[in-house]
Amino acid sequence: MKELKDYVCTIPDFPEKGIMFRDITTVIQDADGLELAVDTMSDLVKDLDFDVIAGAEARGFVFGAAMAYKLHKPLILIRKKGKLPRETVSIEYELEYGTAELEMHSDSFKKGDRVLLVDDLIATGGTTKAMVDLVEKLGGKVVGADYLIELGGLKGRDVVSCPVFSAIKYEGK
Amino acid sequence: MKELKDYVCTIPDFPEKGIMFRDITTVIQDADGLELAVDTMSDLVKDLDFDVIAGAEARGFVFGAAMAYKLHKPLILIRKKGKLPRETVSIEYELEYGTAELEMHSDSFKKGDRVLLVDDLIATGGTTKAMVDLVEKLGGKVVGADYLIELGGLKGRDVVSCPVFSAIKYEGK
Repeated sequence: MKELKDYVCTIPDFPEKGIMFRDITTVIQDADGLELAVDTMSDLVKDLDFDVIAGAEARGFVFGAAMAYKLHKPLILIRKKGKLPRETVSIEYELEYGTAELEMHSDSFKKGDRVLLVDDLIATGGTTKAMVDLVEKLGGKVVGADYLIELGGLKGRDVVSCPVFSAIKYEGK
Repeated sequence: MKELKDYVCTIPDFPEKGIMFRDITTVIQDADGLELAVDTMSDLVKDLDFDVIAGAEARGFVFGAAMAYKLHKPLILIRKKGKLPRETVSIEYELEYGTAELEMHSDSFKKGDRVLLVDDLIATGGTTKAMVDLVEKLGGKVVGADYLIELGGLKGRDVVSCPVFSAIKYEGK
């Protein structure tokens, strides 16, 4: 039987030499791969108590939406600056080169709600850290961050303050 | 009981005077709203024979992913230029001001496959028309385009060559 890892396409030296790019589109363009990914990510958090799922633009929308539908949870979109039409809270964070800004609607959840972050991949953890800060700015509590893929060599889980779950872990970068 | 339409938030005069902006984030940030949206959109195409779902960046990923999971179909991502890591086919199309470009991986589906397009909203139909052309470039056949919302007054369904399905139809623009 095909394992979840077998659906991932690895592209060596992309976008630059020395990077092994993990492409998740080959997972989801197979019905069995998509189902296995969503079911595995859902199983990882089955003992976790959370009120809402927050998906990160844009690949996080894929896994976040399917999980929210399966688990009957609300889905919050964490988007790049300027994409949301109503009142937002935002957070600026540092990238390797320059800064980025993420936003969420101010009425995304109730104060005190328990939030599960969902995205396709955790690398250095910089984006996850910003998302945790964003949720806290709105009075929520991040109870976990759930990924299809973790690049273990980049130690992203060491920089974020919430439990990190991943369906596939690569030891490298 | 709350109807699907009741979950949509309408923002008058956004982004400019005279436009009634239909915001779908209020639908999905309610677990019942998300479920009703995905189930209704799925019911609309229950008699349609299709092999893959193609979701349009970024809100189309939300509904496309949940439907693909529910219906056990592959999910293809149609993305803005430069976001996909492997070999792509692309299409340029005209916007009100300037042009835009959409891409899909070249191995997204097999020649002759029947494709269902999924997105949150159809307005003038310009993006849908480009997506149909993109799928045909790769030898696929678009058998339908499925939306949460249709702005009937903009007559988008008249400019696309495939059947159009919508869960909520507004008569205005």
